Amino acid sequence: MEKVAVLMGSQSDTPIVQEGVKILQDFGAPFEWRILSAHRTPQALKSFVLESGCSVFIAAAGKAAHLAGVIASLTTRPIIALPILTSDLGGLDSLLSSVQMPKGIPVACVGINAASNAALLALQILALNDPLLAQKLTKHRQEQESQVLQADLELQRLL
Amino acid sequence: MEKVAVLMGSQSDTPIVQEGVKILQDFGAPFEWRILSAHRTPQALKSFVLESGCSVFIAAAGKAAHLAGVIASLTTRPIIALPILTSDLGGLDSLLSSVQMPKGIPVACVGINAASNAALLALQILALNDPLLAQKLTKHRQEQESQVLQADLELQRLL
Amino acid sequence: MEKVAVLMGSQSDTPIVQEGVKILQDFGAPFEWRILSAHRTPQALKSFVLESGCSVFIAAAGKAAHLAGVIASLTTRPIIALPILTSDLGGLDSLLSSVQMPKGIPVACVGINAASNAALLALQILALNDPLLAQKLTKHRQEQESQVLQADLELQRLL
Amino acid sequence: MEKVAVLMGSQSDTPIVQEGVKILQDFGAPFEWRILSAHRTPQALKSFVLESGCSVFIAAAGKAAHLAGVIASLTTRPIIALPILTSDLGGLDSLLSSVQMPKGIPVACVGINAASNAALLALQILALNDPLLAQKLTKHRQEQESQVLQADLELQRLL
Amino acid sequence: MEKVAVLMGSQSDTPIVQEGVKILQDFGAPFEWRILSAHRTPQALKSFVLESGCSVFIAAAGKAAHLAGVIASLTTRPIIALPILTSDLGGLDSLLSSVQMPKGIPVACVGINAASNAALLALQILALNDPLLAQKLTKHRQEQESQVLQADLELQRLL
Amino acid sequence: MEKVAVLMGSQSDTPIVQEGVKILQDFGAPFEWRILSAHRTPQALKSFVLESGCSVFIAAAGKAAHLAGVIASLTTRPIIALPILTSDLGGLDSLLSSVQMPKGIPVACVGINAASNAALLALQILALNDPLLAQKLTKHRQEQESQVLQADLELQRLL
Amino acid sequence: MEKVAVLMGSQSDTPIVQEGVKILQDFGAPFEWRILSAHRTPQALKSFVLESGCSVFIAAAGKAAHLAGVIASLTTRPIIALPILTSDLGGLDSLLSSVQMPKGIPVACVGINAASNAALLALQILALNDPLLAQKLTKHRQEQESQVLQADLELQRLL
Amino acid sequence: MEKVAVLMGSQSDTPIVQEGVKILQDFGAPFEWRILSAHRTPQALKSFVLESGCSVFIAAAGKAAHLAGVIASLTTRPIIALPILTSDLGGLDSLLSSVQMPKGIPVACVGINAASNAALLALQILALNDPLLAQKLTKHRQEQESQVLQADLELQRLL
Repeated sequence: MEKVAVLMGSQSDTPIVQEGVKILQDFGAPFEWRILSAHRTPQALKSFVLESGCSVFIAAAGKAAHLAGVIASLTTRPIIALPILTSDLGGLDSLLSSVQMPKGIPVACVGINAASNAALLALQILALNDPLLAQKLTKHRQEQESQVLQADLELQRLL
Repeated sequence: MEKVAVLMGSQSDTPIVQEGVKILQDFGAPFEWRILSAHRTPQALKSFVLESGCSVFIAAAGKAAHLAGVIASLTTRPIIALPILTSDLGGLDSLLSSVQMPKGIPVACVGINAASNAALLALQILALNDPLLAQKLTKHRQEQESQVLQADLELQRLL
Repeated sequence: MEKVAVLMGSQSDTPIVQEGVKILQDFGAPFEWRILSAHRTPQALKSFVLESGCSVFIAAAGKAAHLAGVIASLTTRPIIALPILTSDLGGLDSLLSSVQMPKGIPVACVGINAASNAALLALQILALNDPLLAQKLTKHRQEQESQVLQADLELQRLL
Repeated sequence: MEKVAVLMGSQSDTPIVQEGVKILQDFGAPFEWRILSAHRTPQALKSFVLESGCSVFIAAAGKAAHLAGVIASLTTRPIIALPILTSDLGGLDSLLSSVQMPKGIPVACVGINAASNAALLALQILALNDPLLAQKLTKHRQEQESQVLQADLELQRLL
Repeated sequence: MEKVAVLMGSQSDTPIVQEGVKILQDFGAPFEWRILSAHRTPQALKSFVLESGCSVFIAAAGKAAHLAGVIASLTTRPIIALPILTSDLGGLDSLLSSVQMPKGIPVACVGINAASNAALLALQILALNDPLLAQKLTKHRQEQESQVLQADLELQRLL
Repeated sequence: MEKVAVLMGSQSDTPIVQEGVKILQDFGAPFEWRILSAHRTPQALKSFVLESGCSVFIAAAGKAAHLAGVIASLTTRPIIALPILTSDLGGLDSLLSSVQMPKGIPVACVGINAASNAALLALQILALNDPLLAQKLTKHRQEQESQVLQADLELQRLL
Repeated sequence: MEKVAVLMGSQSDTPIVQEGVKILQDFGAPFEWRILSAHRTPQALKSFVLESGCSVFIAAAGKAAHLAGVIASLTTRPIIALPILTSDLGGLDSLLSSVQMPKGIPVACVGINAASNAALLALQILALNDPLLAQKLTKHRQEQESQVLQADLELQRLL
Repeated sequence: MEKVAVLMGSQSDTPIVQEGVKILQDFGAPFEWRILSAHRTPQALKSFVLESGCSVFIAAAGKAAHLAGVIASLTTRPIIALPILTSDLGGLDSLLSSVQMPKGIPVACVGINAASNAALLALQILALNDPLLAQKLTKHRQEQESQVLQADLELQRLL
């Protein structure tokens, strides 16, 4: 099965990112979870991107978030940008630095701090070629539906 | 070869979107290009999403851009949101309406009006299972590199 | 008397929304309060909108808030969008996703987290055809006036 | 049949607002279209609001758009705020000045420059008590659907 | 000596506004401090503005802050708008609703929550015709200068 | 009669600012209109502020608009900041640079490009001590009212 | 004399950037002007940064502007980021992507499209070690002062 | 060795700024750390800028942050603006007031609250003429790299 790379620009992003890692674990997807910075460890990042053999890359970074873009400059495999919340501008800086990529170098951006969605998107991409994974995603969606309907039922009982 | 769906919420998005369609054509990728609105043709949209057999969906919409999200509620295949520039808020409304999806329902958002990147991202996703397409993407990346280096050379001659 | 539907996209919106529900209760207005998600329970949402017989719909949702728009695609009855505060962008995403609806599909948007106002707006709409309710609204407005004047009196005593 | 008031804070808003007036005319709805300013003609505005007998008020204003709010302070009938595009801040000022009303004084805000939607929302409100108007709104929605499907057909022929 | 009116749209603004009231007290300026709402007590507000005999009005309000504008529609005396911090949009809504007044109806806006500055501005205006007050303002400015220089000295001692 | 200073940070602001100068001329108010930059001519600016004998200062500047603040650091007379529209950020930079002054150094900010309002505000301040000017301002306000009512009448004739 | 590198991420930035190049030429500063993209020519960019021997780098880029940051990851020499105006978000994306650099990797950001200032800042840095250049900068500043004073004189003649 | 000036507009900025001062101390760079306000102590600020003999100026200020600009009007030496986080607008006001300087008066802006980066940028500038300092900066960069790689190793051990 193909591997997902989960990269963080900074150790401090761990609490946000691990929610996405948990999704990958729950789905039994192979992954590598690494701390590699576009600015502080450019060489190690490049080596990882070129040599890891991962199929999809999730890049979590905040502020002037260049991690996804730098990875995108090194490979044509799909890159998912996960913009991290910032304490000053609410993550708008991370979001714009991630999503507004120049022509020719696409990045797939999810919402601010949306680590679960980044992981699910990676799985959706891999599931195109993995019918079992596709089934698991359908089942996961049904569970979400059930949870909402269950919460709705509980609300009706309270009224 | 797997098909890409290119959906627009409004006919007026055509000039933007066709730049991405051209990329798909240049790469020889099968695609369907449709005008289907989340708000005005919800039934036809649902039928298309469930029956078209497309692997990846590109959803172009502006303002309160709900198209990508509505498609995402109907399938677990990858959805690429293409937020369209608006004349009042510069597309910030389209961008936030597209990218800030709730937990569990991911959408892959590209930049405002970035139709080429939406198409390239769709191709990158399909190329995971299509080595020939992967080669074409690598070649396309090399051509981009050559164009920049060529432009640089011309600038040096002018100086 | 006509019924108001109060829909939330997520159970977590309960503390905000119940302030509006309390207004409906205080005015003796019949209502249904439901948790139904545009993305996670699209089918149940559609059934509710088409079958509940409610006259006015209040749709509370945050982030890429598509709930009001999806309801609006299913009915021509008035929809009141209640954008929920988000922890990153302060609800600007919820607001723009709600208010910037495309031409032809209107939604009536109130302020961020303004659940009371959403409920009062629903009552104002129903009161056009319900003189007793109109009287209650006038009385409620007078009470607001009295509260401000009373607070002003207390401030004068403190000075 | 009940009357809709269409108020503009400034004569310069005419080209935007008349698109909504045309909707009212097309639906055969009685209306009054007035230029009345919250700041420049507060007395005439107050007289109109209290004496016109209109059921629903559409208030179009730009910049620090106080018109809808001032009307809302004078009546408990539904007020629809139509924020007008501004040349500096893209209408974000008009939008926030309109939609972020204080607790207890609701205003129903539509999108920036969304005059058609303001008119349709007014009609949706009146249609709750007017089955013929409700039918017309359903028919109008179906025409919108047909237009999108027709545009889609034309696009397919071009491909 | 001429009187300053300090008006708040809501009792909840008291902790912010009283910082400005304290400045007026420290300078011995006569003032009236009132809670009067543009939306909830329009009649009492109008009476106050027309009858109080105040020379300068400070209007503190948050969200869609219409208070300063409504006062400005009733008098040609100087109005100082004090936009109050909001928990969602950081006061940007209050600021834009206050400062972006239409042509012909000026309002003097100070910063978000800048109650001291609102009071000092009122005093600066009155001081044009009150040499003693002008002297006090100059002395107050010199004290500010001394405080900064003193803080600087302390910092030098710590280094 | 007291003099108004109209200062611009750049010659390019002339077309905007002259609309305010025209108001001063129409009211027969003495004024000085100068181009003086906080950054390029700090010395000449300081001399002017300290020696001109003007009572009120209007400071027009764009981008990182420091002109009003620098004047405010030199005098305790009222300073009116007129933020100029910028081609990139729509004047939001000019507005925030002008209005968000630190505690103790107030500036009276008007809307973006609102030169007329800056001039009227200066006149309102001077009118506190000039009954004739106060009368003219009241008359000007009445003319504005008449213009709106006249425009309204014309609109009624067209309907 | 030390060399300044002027790098653009895209040929389309030429009209903006050449205004800064002209400044460098006017001051007689040696420079290299290159088109090198962080995303499209990462290898050529790296070679240039490591081998060109330039002392200061000006990096012009728009949208998700990563150029300055990528250069900063390769050298500890001063990097000046020049964010380019974008047609959708007014350059706010370019600005935030440039200025909000993570801890430890500084970038010196100038205003949107402020090519002249980028060049002058580079010269100011080099002038710390070049008294003749420092003199030229002082003279250039005096010329700016003269131009403002001259424009002011002309305005006085017109009044 | 050349001196760095670290100026704060307000004593309250101390906790943020001292992180940058610590960097200067760690690198053994001579510096002066002063509290001097553009608005409250313009005279003392001017004296310091003209007489201190510092080569590079770091100017920390929040809200309508004029400190860097006012220093820039007094010298052609490099000025680094450090915009301070604000409790209302998240520092966007400080950032725009700092970075959007008018043509001809450059300021080098770093990120919001990025005191370390301001200090490192000052050191990078001085290192152009100080090989030992340049070596220290390279070593510091290597330490940052090591820290990231170390954190990455620890993460791998935890997995």
